[in-house]
Formats: sequence, C-alpha cells, structure tokens
Amino acid sequence: MGVRTLTIRENILAANREKAESIRQLLDSRRILMVNIMSSPGSGKTSLIMQTINRLRDKYRIAVIEGDVASSIDTDKIIRQNVPAVQINTGGGCHLHAQMIKQALDKLDLDGIDLIFIENVGNLICTADFDLGAHKNAVILSIPEGDDKPFKYPVMFVEADVVLVNKVDVMPHFDFKLDGFPAIIGGLNPSARVFTISAKTGEGIDDWVSWIEATLTRT
Amino acid sequence: MGVRTLTIRENILAANREKAESIRQLLDSRRILMVNIMSSPGSGKTSLIMQTINRLRDKYRIAVIEGDVASSIDTDKIIRQNVPAVQINTGGGCHLHAQMIKQALDKLDLDGIDLIFIENVGNLICTADFDLGAHKNAVILSIPEGDDKPFKYPVMFVEADVVLVNKVDVMPHFDFKLDGFPAIIGGLNPSARVFTISAKTGEGIDDWVSWIEATLTRT
Repeated sequence: MGVRTLTIRENILAANREKAESIRQLLDSRRILMVNIMSSPGSGKTSLIMQTINRLRDKYRIAVIEGDVASSIDTDKIIRQNVPAVQINTGGGCHLHAQMIKQALDKLDLDGIDLIFIENVGNLICTADFDLGAHKNAVILSIPEGDDKPFKYPVMFVEADVVLVNKVDVMPHFDFKLDGFPAIIGGLNPSARVFTISAKTGEGIDDWVSWIEATLTRT
Repeated sequence: MGVRTLTIRENILAANREKAESIRQLLDSRRILMVNIMSSPGSGKTSLIMQTINRLRDKYRIAVIEGDVASSIDTDKIIRQNVPAVQINTGGGCHLHAQMIKQALDKLDLDGIDLIFIENVGNLICTADFDLGAHKNAVILSIPEGDDKPFKYPVMFVEADVVLVNKVDVMPHFDFKLDGFPAIIGGLNPSARVFTISAKTGEGIDDWVSWIEATLTRT
C-alpha cells in the first residue's frame, strides 16, 4: 500500500472509532450490553448465540444483529426462536463497521432490550480492526481449526475479552492440544478469559453464560 | 465506502491484475503450473499441500509459496519435507496480492520447478478478489465448517476451478450433507470440479492428484 492508501485507511478507522464511541454511549444510557462475536466461518457463532439465548431468554430481553457477506440463513434461525434479529449483508465486504451497527440498532426497539449479540462476518482477520461499539469482544476458535491459529492470526486474539474453544465434543478426532491452549492465549493476551465449550451439546456453556450475566450486572 | 475509496480500490485491483498477468506469462514461458489454494483458517491447506507433495515429488519438481498474517509455522513444515518454500508475512493484511507473489518467485530457482502451490492467507472472503497470476484456484471447505458456506461466502466458490471438501474422515460427527453438496456448488459454478477428500487419511487425494497431473500435461 502507498502512503495515500494508508492515510485513507487511517481516516476510515478514525471515523469508525468515533461512530463506535457514540454507539457505546447510546447503549450505556439505556443500560444495554452489546457483545461482538467473531470467528472463522463455521466455528459456531450462531450455535453459541442460540445456546445463550436458550439459557438467558427468561431473565433478559435479547436481540441479535447478524452480519453476513450474503444470505439470511442465520437471521432466519434466530427469528424462528422468537428473538428479534436484524440482518446486515455486506455484499462482499469482509467485516462489519460501526455505521452498519447504528443502522441495525435503529431497526430494533431498544426500550425492550437488555443484551445484544452481534454475529460478525466469518473472518479471523479483518473483523478485528473495526470497533463496532460493543462492550466486549468474544472470539471463537473451534477444535477442528487447530491450536496454532493464535500464532497465525494474532490480532484477533490480542484484542479479545473472551476466547471460546468450541466443538470440544469432537476433541478425540483432532490434534488440538487443549491443555496447553490457555497458556498460548495467556502469552498473547493475559487478561482474556478462556472458556472450553460445545455449542452443540451445551458442555461448558454455563461458565460463558455466568460471565455474560456478571458482565450484565456491571452494565 | 465513498466514490473516491471505490475508485482507489478499482485502481488497486486493476494494477494487481496487470501484475498477475505478467506473472502468468513468466510461468507459461517456463512451463510452470501455479495453483492458488484458499480456505478459512484450519480447513487443511497445508495438509493438502503436504499430501500432494508426497504423491508427486518423485515425478515433478514442486515449490510452495506460504502466505500468513504472521508466523512461519507452515513454511517450516514444508521445508522439513525438503521442498523449497518461501514465506510471505502480510503483517496484518488479510490476503496476498500479485506483487507479493512476484517477490516470492524471485527467491525461487524457477529453472528447477514444474509446479508451484500458493497457500493463501486463511480467509474465505478477501483472498477471492486478488488474481495472483496462478493458473488455477482451488478452495477447500472442511466438513466441520458446514455445508451452508457457499451461500454465505459465494464469491470464493463462484471463482474456484476446484472445490475440495476436506476432513471427510470426521463426517459421522458433523451435520454436513455431502450428497447434496455438488449440486450446491453446481448451482453457483457449473464448471467447478468437486473432490471429497481427507488430507489426514489420504482418502480421495488420488482424484485431486490426477486432476493436477492432467492440468500439468496441458501446461
């Protein structure tokens, strides 16, 4: 990239941060917690959100903002659970940005909401650069992807508040060294929480849900 | 994005295409086949390349260009197989572009090479937009990622010459509907070849290797 392209990129990121900050202020004024969930395609973002909805829907009012390059497959799944969901299609774009989130929030009745999940586009790189106005960033890495991914895609893991290791139900069939994984994350990001889960079977979801509830209490 | 940003993007893509075309001419003049391998993180790009090297190393001279955001984990694996490999670290960038490939080719002794694999950065979106001067584009989707990914990330699948469905050894543990998958790809991209493989066990690799050899013969 030339200097001019870099400058334009910096301007884009600065404008995005400003928009994100105004979103966070809006949510704070209404005591809404927003959590941004990121991962590669197919790591289990939708399944995690569905499990979390099932555990918390009787206590909190939840909404979901679904980001995808194309399709509304995941939004349709959420809406079938009678949870409000807004679809964002990026039309080729590889991440969400704050202005898209603002437009999605405008379509939700915020008076009725305690907790919003953003399901970001499936991408372990570009999504890390864009502050969406969420209070917390959660990254999912699934067992089949391999335990070397934090070294290959470090920014995502450095900036995460929570790292969820998903699909632990298929551990016996893959070479993921789970014992050493918290130390890998700790080396990159000592303050990140690590939860080991199966969004399919529900294993480990309680710890994640407890963390969400504790975070909601502090909102 | 504003009009100015779009124009700059178009200029970047046009300059990239020009560079890619000059790379293809260079490779054609030396009768070298170059194949660009793309997927999400952890879908099995390195494992596929290692399996292919094992099958073809006695008949053809092979080299690998390894793209990663950070680390040289995969290049180290390839070099341990006594195959020449050049590492490209994008330092945060989410895809390779043609100029990076030109610089990598300059580090290889092309006189000794028949076949080059590019292992692109793990990303099912951005990598699809940049022609690298390869003759063929192969996309890997692994069983744990799910069979809905072509709808969510269509560009990658529309532009592929080959789609490899990897990790078929773990099929019983996931909900991937393999029977209907060729029709999904066929709907997006009727000319794409679909191979079902396990880069771990070697299942199905023969068909892929036969396709590579047939393509080499036409080079």
